[in-house]
Amino acid sequence: MAENRPPDSSRRSESSRRAIHDAALGLVGEVGYPRTTIEAIAARAGVGKQTIYRWWPSKAAVLLDAFVALGDRAAERSGGGEAQGISDTGDLAADLRAVLRATVDELTDPAFEAPTRALAAEGIVDPRLGAEFVQKLLDPSLRLYAARLRAAQEAGQVRADVDPRIALELLVGPLTHRWLLRTLPLTHAYVDTVVDYTLRGLTPHGDAPVIS
Amino acid sequence: MAENRPPDSSRRSESSRRAIHDAALGLVGEVGYPRTTIEAIAARAGVGKQTIYRWWPSKAAVLLDAFVALGDRAAERSGGGEAQGISDTGDLAADLRAVLRATVDELTDPAFEAPTRALAAEGIVDPRLGAEFVQKLLDPSLRLYAARLRAAQEAGQVRADVDPRIALELLVGPLTHRWLLRTLPLTHAYVDTVVDYTLRGLTPHGDAPVIS
Repeated sequence: MAENRPPDSSRRSESSRRAIHDAALGLVGEVGYPRTTIEAIAARAGVGKQTIYRWWPSKAAVLLDAFVALGDRAAERSGGGEAQGISDTGDLAADLRAVLRATVDELTDPAFEAPTRALAAEGIVDPRLGAEFVQKLLDPSLRLYAARLRAAQEAGQVRADVDPRIALELLVGPLTHRWLLRTLPLTHAYVDTVVDYTLRGLTPHGDAPVIS
Repeated sequence: MAENRPPDSSRRSESSRRAIHDAALGLVGEVGYPRTTIEAIAARAGVGKQTIYRWWPSKAAVLLDAFVALGDRAAERSGGGEAQGISDTGDLAADLRAVLRATVDELTDPAFEAPTRALAAEGIVDPRLGAEFVQKLLDPSLRLYAARLRAAQEAGQVRADVDPRIALELLVGPLTHRWLLRTLPLTHAYVDTVVDYTLRGLTPHGDAPVIS
């Protein structure tokens, strides 16, 4: 369909925007966040610095935007993923396994891994950037888990006294820990086990400890 | 007792070693890992560069050693903590709450927080440093959780089909996620809830889903 659409300024803008995103992600993955500059992004994207400053107030803003776009593209490629919401097939375990497996694929995708690590590392030492990272990138995805768990709660599949906002951290926390710190391989089998343990707990059925 | 012990080279060594550790931790927390140099550590500790090179092959080695010593000191101060092992009182939930609460206190202690964040952030983007960080600092503490869960398994308090090495990530993963990414406050109440959910699971008792 694209060839029937006349070239116009919005298409040119879109292609510059995409080139700037790609340049920003490539640079941050290669040289790290502190050494990625607006000048270098502009040079690699083949645009003037002013083009970047017209659209974004800062390097952090360019990068966060680039990550949002990258996540959307990954979700489109995989025909789903968490950017589209988490499926509700009625089978909570299967739905959680599906979204966590897709996240494993994304986090271990070379196009995604280096820039995501660079941005996460910088957010860990820079509270202001970290807060933007959480607000713009992480929280929207965590809310999808909370919503799916809440639906399961309404269906009686999750205990009524469980706080979905905390429960979701038993799913994404282990995955993030293993990925960021590279303790052991991050695989589909691993996230399947995490879903199993999280839903069923570690204690034998009918023998749950009394929590004081 | 110290005044009865004659000053000797091993005491001088110990005090230099401690000064070097403190300088390394202070600098990495203030200026970050990349900008912390052996020269700056030596200057701040009041020793010659050669003293440092005599004991450690690299900046990473100094820092990892400094962290091990810091963890030991924190454990001594708190009269326990995970560096001394995880208690086995027979009450798994209580023992896990105790060690995780002590870890929260450590991670939110200003003396510990800035250098730990700086080292973790660098390990995230530098796989070689990350591997040393995991091997020397993280794995020894994870093994304590695995051992405690294995003891509970032998006591029939944890399902026999649970892999302790994976199960422990449901405890430390959420804590690390919340601490590193600063999503929400890291409190004792939070880790208590994580222990509760991890042990009991999210699904209603007697209504566990069949895991395919």
